[in-house]
Amino acid sequence: MDKPEATQSDIFRAFLENYRWDGVPHLPYKEEGSAPFKSITRQVLFHDPELRCELRYFEVAPGGYSTLERHQHSHGVMILRGEADVMVGGEVKPVKTHDLVRIPPMTWHRFRTRGEEPMGFLCMVNVERDRPQLPTAEDLETLQADPKIADFLAL
Amino acid sequence: MDKPEATQSDIFRAFLENYRWDGVPHLPYKEEGSAPFKSITRQVLFHDPELRCELRYFEVAPGGYSTLERHQHSHGVMILRGEADVMVGGEVKPVKTHDLVRIPPMTWHRFRTRGEEPMGFLCMVNVERDRPQLPTAEDLETLQADPKIADFLAL
Repeated sequence: MDKPEATQSDIFRAFLENYRWDGVPHLPYKEEGSAPFKSITRQVLFHDPELRCELRYFEVAPGGYSTLERHQHSHGVMILRGEADVMVGGEVKPVKTHDLVRIPPMTWHRFRTRGEEPMGFLCMVNVERDRPQLPTAEDLETLQADPKIADFLAL
Repeated sequence: MDKPEATQSDIFRAFLENYRWDGVPHLPYKEEGSAPFKSITRQVLFHDPELRCELRYFEVAPGGYSTLERHQHSHGVMILRGEADVMVGGEVKPVKTHDLVRIPPMTWHRFRTRGEEPMGFLCMVNVERDRPQLPTAEDLETLQADPKIADFLAL
C-alpha cells in the first residue's frame, strides 16, 4: 500500500475552545501599521503544497473590521460564527453564520462585526496571488459618493 | 471605479434551512452505481474561474458513508455539522464539528456518520485533479490486515 508516511496530528487537527485548532498558530491579521484594520486575527487551516488554495480563518472581535482593499485575486468566504456587515463593491449586506460571500477581482471589500459577539469567517484564496491594494484619496471619494457606502465606511 | 458588474445574488448567497444555500444546486454525490457509497449529497459552494480550488459541502445521512477511494490530489476537510468516523490511511478517528482532516495524496480514505444526526463537511480540492481510484480486491485485503481498519470497513 503506497500511502505516504504522516503523523496522526498532521492528518487530524481537533477544534478546541475559543475557535482555535490544535497545532494551528494564532497569528496577527497583518503587520501592525501596514494598513487600517481593527481587532482581527488569522489562522491558516490548510496550506498544503498539493493544494492550489489556502483556507484561512479570520476572527474579528466586536467593533472590529478588516482592511478596505482590493486585489486581482478572488476570495470565497463562508461566515463561521457571528454576524457582520460586508461591503463588496457597491453593496453592503448583513450576513450571518454559514452565509457565503464571493469577492470578485479588483472589487473593494471590507468586513465589519455586527452586535456583541465575535465574527469569524473562512476565506479560500489562491496560494499564488497579488498583494492587496489600499484606496487612494480619490478612490475613497468615489466610494463615498454612494451614501450607504459612506455610512458603512464612517462607522 | 473598475469593479466588475455582478448581480447581488452572485456575491451574497444566504444559508437556508437544512444546510442548503440560496442558488446552490443540491446534487448527487456521484453517479449512482459508479462506486460504493450510501446516503450522501453534494453542493458546490464555490467554483469560480478565478480560484484554483473548489469548496464543496457533502452531507451524509445517519448510517451513510462516502466511497473508499484514493487519488493523487489532496483534500482539505472541515466538519461543518455532526460527527463521523474518518479513515485516512492506517488511521480511524472520531471527528466532530469544526475538526480538520487533511487527506494526503494516494491515501485511502472514507467518511462514515456517527450517531443519529446528519454529518456534513466542507472539502477544498484543486479544480484540476485526477479521478479517484477504487480499491482492488488485493488493496482491500491489504487494508483489512489491520483489525481496526477491517472493523471500520465492515460496519
